[in-house]
Amino acid sequence: MLIEQIHEPTDLKKLSIKQLKQLCEELRSEIVNVVSEHGGHLASNLGVVELTVAVHYVFDTPEDKLVMDVGHQSYAHKLLTGRYGAFHTLRQKGGISGFPQQDESEYDAFTAGHASTAISAALGMARTRDIMRGEYDVVALVGDGALTGGMCYEALNDAGQSNTRMIVLLNDNEMSIAPNVGALSRYLTRMRQSKGYIAVKHGVRDRLEKHPRFGAPLYRALSKFRNNLRSFFVDDKFFSALGFAYMGPVDGHDLRQLIKVLRRARGYDRPQLIHVVTQKGRGYQPAEDHPVTFHGVAPFFLESGARKREGEASSGKVVARQLSDMADNDIRICAITAAMPMGTGMDIFQQAHPDRCFDVGIAEEHAVTMAAGMASQGMKPYVAIYSTFLQRAYDQILVDVCRNGLPVTFLIDRAGLVGEDGETHQGVFDLSYLRSIPGLVVAAPRDVRDLKKLVEISQDYGGPMAIRYPKGCEDMGPGIQSQRRFSVGQWELLSDGSDVMIFAVGRMVSLSMQAAIELMGKGVSAGVVDARFVAPMDREMLLGKASGVRLVVTAEENVLAGGFGEGVLDALASAGMDVPVLTLGVPDRFVAQATVAQQTVECGLDALSIARRISERLKELGEARP
Amino acid sequence: MLIEQIHEPTDLKKLSIKQLKQLCEELRSEIVNVVSEHGGHLASNLGVVELTVAVHYVFDTPEDKLVMDVGHQSYAHKLLTGRYGAFHTLRQKGGISGFPQQDESEYDAFTAGHASTAISAALGMARTRDIMRGEYDVVALVGDGALTGGMCYEALNDAGQSNTRMIVLLNDNEMSIAPNVGALSRYLTRMRQSKGYIAVKHGVRDRLEKHPRFGAPLYRALSKFRNNLRSFFVDDKFFSALGFAYMGPVDGHDLRQLIKVLRRARGYDRPQLIHVVTQKGRGYQPAEDHPVTFHGVAPFFLESGARKREGEASSGKVVARQLSDMADNDIRICAITAAMPMGTGMDIFQQAHPDRCFDVGIAEEHAVTMAAGMASQGMKPYVAIYSTFLQRAYDQILVDVCRNGLPVTFLIDRAGLVGEDGETHQGVFDLSYLRSIPGLVVAAPRDVRDLKKLVEISQDYGGPMAIRYPKGCEDMGPGIQSQRRFSVGQWELLSDGSDVMIFAVGRMVSLSMQAAIELMGKGVSAGVVDARFVAPMDREMLLGKASGVRLVVTAEENVLAGGFGEGVLDALASAGMDVPVLTLGVPDRFVAQATVAQQTVECGLDALSIARRISERLKELGEARP
Repeated sequence: MLIEQIHEPTDLKKLSIKQLKQLCEELRSEIVNVVSEHGGHLASNLGVVELTVAVHYVFDTPEDKLVMDVGHQSYAHKLLTGRYGAFHTLRQKGGISGFPQQDESEYDAFTAGHASTAISAALGMARTRDIMRGEYDVVALVGDGALTGGMCYEALNDAGQSNTRMIVLLNDNEMSIAPNVGALSRYLTRMRQSKGYIAVKHGVRDRLEKHPRFGAPLYRALSKFRNNLRSFFVDDKFFSALGFAYMGPVDGHDLRQLIKVLRRARGYDRPQLIHVVTQKGRGYQPAEDHPVTFHGVAPFFLESGARKREGEASSGKVVARQLSDMADNDIRICAITAAMPMGTGMDIFQQAHPDRCFDVGIAEEHAVTMAAGMASQGMKPYVAIYSTFLQRAYDQILVDVCRNGLPVTFLIDRAGLVGEDGETHQGVFDLSYLRSIPGLVVAAPRDVRDLKKLVEISQDYGGPMAIRYPKGCEDMGPGIQSQRRFSVGQWELLSDGSDVMIFAVGRMVSLSMQAAIELMGKGVSAGVVDARFVAPMDREMLLGKASGVRLVVTAEENVLAGGFGEGVLDALASAGMDVPVLTLGVPDRFVAQATVAQQTVECGLDALSIARRISERLKELGEARP
Repeated sequence: MLIEQIHEPTDLKKLSIKQLKQLCEELRSEIVNVVSEHGGHLASNLGVVELTVAVHYVFDTPEDKLVMDVGHQSYAHKLLTGRYGAFHTLRQKGGISGFPQQDESEYDAFTAGHASTAISAALGMARTRDIMRGEYDVVALVGDGALTGGMCYEALNDAGQSNTRMIVLLNDNEMSIAPNVGALSRYLTRMRQSKGYIAVKHGVRDRLEKHPRFGAPLYRALSKFRNNLRSFFVDDKFFSALGFAYMGPVDGHDLRQLIKVLRRARGYDRPQLIHVVTQKGRGYQPAEDHPVTFHGVAPFFLESGARKREGEASSGKVVARQLSDMADNDIRICAITAAMPMGTGMDIFQQAHPDRCFDVGIAEEHAVTMAAGMASQGMKPYVAIYSTFLQRAYDQILVDVCRNGLPVTFLIDRAGLVGEDGETHQGVFDLSYLRSIPGLVVAAPRDVRDLKKLVEISQDYGGPMAIRYPKGCEDMGPGIQSQRRFSVGQWELLSDGSDVMIFAVGRMVSLSMQAAIELMGKGVSAGVVDARFVAPMDREMLLGKASGVRLVVTAEENVLAGGFGEGVLDALASAGMDVPVLTLGVPDRFVAQATVAQQTVECGLDALSIARRISERLKELGEARP
C-alpha cells in the first residue's frame, strides 16, 4: 500500500503519476471505509482526492499554506499529512477532527467549520507574508457552495484590488450540501459547458497532430508558452471584474492537468482563481448516485450504501410537516432555508409549497433580512437555520427583524450540544445572543409535543419568535403527561418539591426530572419547572416556586455567560429574593467532538451529574448554616 | 416655494420638469440649512436629490416600495413625503429620524441603519408581491459603498436567479463614507469612464441632427425604441453574471434622463440594476470639496462650512496615535478598518504605516476573519469597528478568532449610548454578545489614560481581546487620580464604602463616583470599584468588596440581559454569597434618538438617577427587614 508510505507530503513528490493515481484510489478506499464505520462527510471528500494530492505534490506545505473552507473536503489532506494511522478515530472523542484544526496539525493552516471564511483567512496570510517579507504561497480551497456566502465576495473584492499573490481553488462540484442555488451557480454552469480549456486543447492537439512533421513539436512548444496557453481558458467575466486572473475550467480528476495548472499558477504574482470541476461522491457508486444523502452520513454498509441503523426521528421534519399543514390554509406562511433544505427538514415544505419555499444559499444574513422584508408586507416567514450558523445573522435578527417588531419565526435546529461535529458547530450560544435582543421571544420545547405547540402558537403571534431544538426528537426526552395548553411566556410546573426547585430548559427538563427521582432516593425533595420560554420569563411562576425552597437550580444546554440561569438570577435579584441559586450549563470553554451523551456528561448536565451537583451544593449550604 | 406645496409624492406629478428642477434646489437648500443647525448626514443626501425626485415622480409610493440602504440618503425622501414641516426636528429627541423608519411614515418601506440590507428586504417584498398576487413595484436604492458588503452579493445572487420583478438603483457616488475600496469599485470606475449611455447618445444625436430632414424625427423614433436604446448602455459583465439586466451609467443629476430610464425600467418584468452616477455633496461647495468631512457633520456655519464648535476629542484618535507609535517598533502590529478610516481614527495609523493599514470596505465579517488569518501567521492585528457594526461579525469573532485563541484585538468604538443616530446604532449589546464567547477578554476603560493602558496591555497579550469605548474622550469622565498599573482581569477599588458597593464599567465609573458623593449627602456610604474587565472578572475583588455591605450595585452602559450585572450575579451565586444586588443598565428595549445625555437620563444611568435608585432599593431593604 502506497498510502502507508506517505508520512508527510514530501513523500508524495517521489511518486510517479501512475503511483499518484494508485494513491488516489487508496485514499478513496480508506475514506469510504472509515466513514462507513463511524459516519462523517463523504461525498465532498471523495470529490477532491486528486485535487488534494496535486496541491500537496506541487506546493510545499506546511511552509505553503493550504486553507480549506468549511472542511468537508479535508479527509484526503489529513491522510496525506501524518494522520493515516489515527484516521480511524475520525470524529470520535479524543480522535481526529472532521474539520481542519490548527491545534491538530501544523498542516491545518486554519481551523474551519463555518462556510465562506477561507479566502479571508488566506488573504490575511498573504498580506502577512508581504509585510514580513516571507516567500510562502497561500492557497484557499473553496467549494462552489461556500461561494454563495457574502463573506467570499467581501474577500474576493478586497483581494482583487490588493494585487497580492494568492491562489483561490474553486472546487466546483455543482452542489452545496444540496444542489446549488443562485445566479452565480448558473454562471459557473455556463462556464463548464462552454468550450473551455480541455476541449479547445484537445482540438488543437488533434489538428496539430495531423500535421506529419511539425505538428507534435509545435504543440509541445505551444503548451509550454504560458501566455498563449492562457487563451485556452474560458473567458470569464465575474472573477475578472473582481480583479482575479481566472483559469479554468479544469478537470478535477485529471492529475496531470491539475499539476500542470497548479505549477503554472505558482509562478504568477497576483490573485488568481482556478476553477476546478469535480464530482461529488467520485469513486463510490452510491455516493455518486446520491450525493446529497452522502454529504454527511451515519454509519452505512459498504456494499449497498444502506444505513446500518435507522436514523433518529428528526425535529426538523416534525416542524416542517406541521408548517406545511399550516400553510395549506394560510397563504402568509413561507419557509426560508440557507442551503439546508434536507438538514432542516424544509424539503418537506418545499415539496408541498414550492412557490413559498426559498433556498437562498449559504447566506444567513440575506435569509434573515429577506424574511424581514417579507414580514413587513404581511407574510409570516419561518427561517430554518442551525443554531451555530444563525450566529452569522445576529445583527440582522437584532436590527432588521426585532428593531421593527416583525413577525419572523426562527426555527433553530441543532441547538445545544451537537456531538461529532465538535467545537465549531456547538449550538450552545443561542440563548445568550438571542436573550440580549429586546422584544424577541425565545422558546425551547422539552419534547415533540411542545415543539408542535410552539410552532402552532407562532402562527398567530405578532412579533419575532425563536424556537430552538436539538436535531433528534428523542433528544428532547419522552413526553411528560401533564402537558396543557400554554401561551407565550408561560412555564409549566411538572412536579413540586420542598427542598429544591429546578427550572429547566429544553432537553434539560427530562434530565432534571430524572435527577429529581435520583435526589428523592437521597431524601431530597426536588421539583421541576419547564421554563420553556427563556424570554419572556414567567416571573410569577419563578418567584412563586423559588420561594420557600432551600435551593433554586437552573439547567440549560447553553453557555452560562448570558444564558437562562443569569436571567433567572437577575429576575430574583430585582424582586429582592435572596435564595441560593445553582446555575447549571455549558462551562465557559469550547466543547470538543464526542457523542452528545459524552458531551452532556463532560458538561455535568446528565441526570446523575445534575443530582450530584445539587446534593453537593445542599451539603455546602447545610454546612454554612450554623 | 414649491416645497411647501408638496404634501405627498403625488403632488410632484403635477409639476413640469422646470419646476422639478427648482424643487431640487429648494430641497438642497432645506437640507443644508437644517443640517447646518443640528448636524446630520449631508454629502450623500445632497447627491440623491434628483434621483429621489425622479423615483417619486415615476413610481407610486407608498403602494410601490422604495427601500433605502443605510439611510444616509433619506432626507429628500422625507421632505417629499409629508415631513417638510417637522424636518427641523431631525435627529432630535422625539423628532424626525435620520434614517428611514417604518414606524415614522408609511413611505419608509423598511427601517435601515446598517449597510447592505436593502436588496434583501426588497427581494422579500417582491416575492411577497408575487405570492400575494400584488401589482406594486419594488425599488432598492443602494450606494456603491454598501455594495462592498457581502449581504448585497448574497441578495443579488438570489434575486438574479429568481426572475422576480425588482429594480436596484445603484447610487454610485464613488465613495463609501471614505473613498471607496475594492475591486468592484475599480470596475464601476471603468464603467463610468467607458463611452456609455450619455456620450453615445449625444454622439448619435449630433450626427442625426446634422441631417436636415430626417435627422430629428429619426432620433426621436430611435429614442422610443426600447430594445434599441438598450444598446446605448455600457456592456456590463459583473451584474449580468449575477442575472441582472444592467442599465447605465446614467447621470444622476439629469432629471429628464432619470425619469426616462426609470419609466422604461418600470415596464420590465425581471431583476434590473440601474447604475446612477451622482456627486456627493452636490450643490453645496464645501461638501463638494470635502465629501468625507461632510458625510456626517456637527452643526456648521453655512457660509464657510466651518464647524460651529470644536469637536470633542475622539477616543479613536487617541487609540490610533498610540497604536501608530507602538507599530514603529513592532512590525507585527497592523490595523484593519471596515470603511471607517476617519470615524475610527485609523486614518492616523494609515498615514504612518500605509502598508500595515487595511480598509476592507463595509465588510465586517471579512475584516475579522482576515485578522484571524493574519494572527495565525504571527501578526498582531487591531480591528477597529463600531460596536453596532461589529454585531455583523459575531460568528467570526467566536469561531475564527476565539475558537483558535488568536491574538486579535478589537477596538470597539461608539460603545454604549450613541445619541442622535438612535435605535439602529446603539452600542449597548456588545458586553452581552462578547461575554458569551469563551476565552475573549472584554475590557472597558473609564477614562483616556486607562484606554491607553489597555491598548498597551494588548500588545503583549497572547489571546483575543476586546476594548470598548465611547466616541468622545470626555464621555469617559475626568481621570481619577488613584490609577495604578494593572494587568488583565484586574479591577480597581476607587473608594471604599460600608453600606453600598458599586461595581461600574466604562463611562459608568465616573457617574457612579458622582452618585456616591450624592449618596454621601444622604448619609449613605457607597464605594466604587472600576470593573474595567467585564471578562474575566476580578473575582477576588468582587467577593471581597461585596461582602459586608448592605447592597451591591452594578452599573453598565449595556442591556441588562446577558450583560456585566448578570455576570456579577452568577459569580456571587456560585460563591454562595447572598447579598442583595441592584443591576443598573439599559432597559430591555430599543433606545431612540436623543442626545447621549438625554438617553443616559432616560435609562436611569445619570449620577442622580443612580443615587436615587440606590436610595430606593436601600429603603426597600430597610423596610423588608423586621
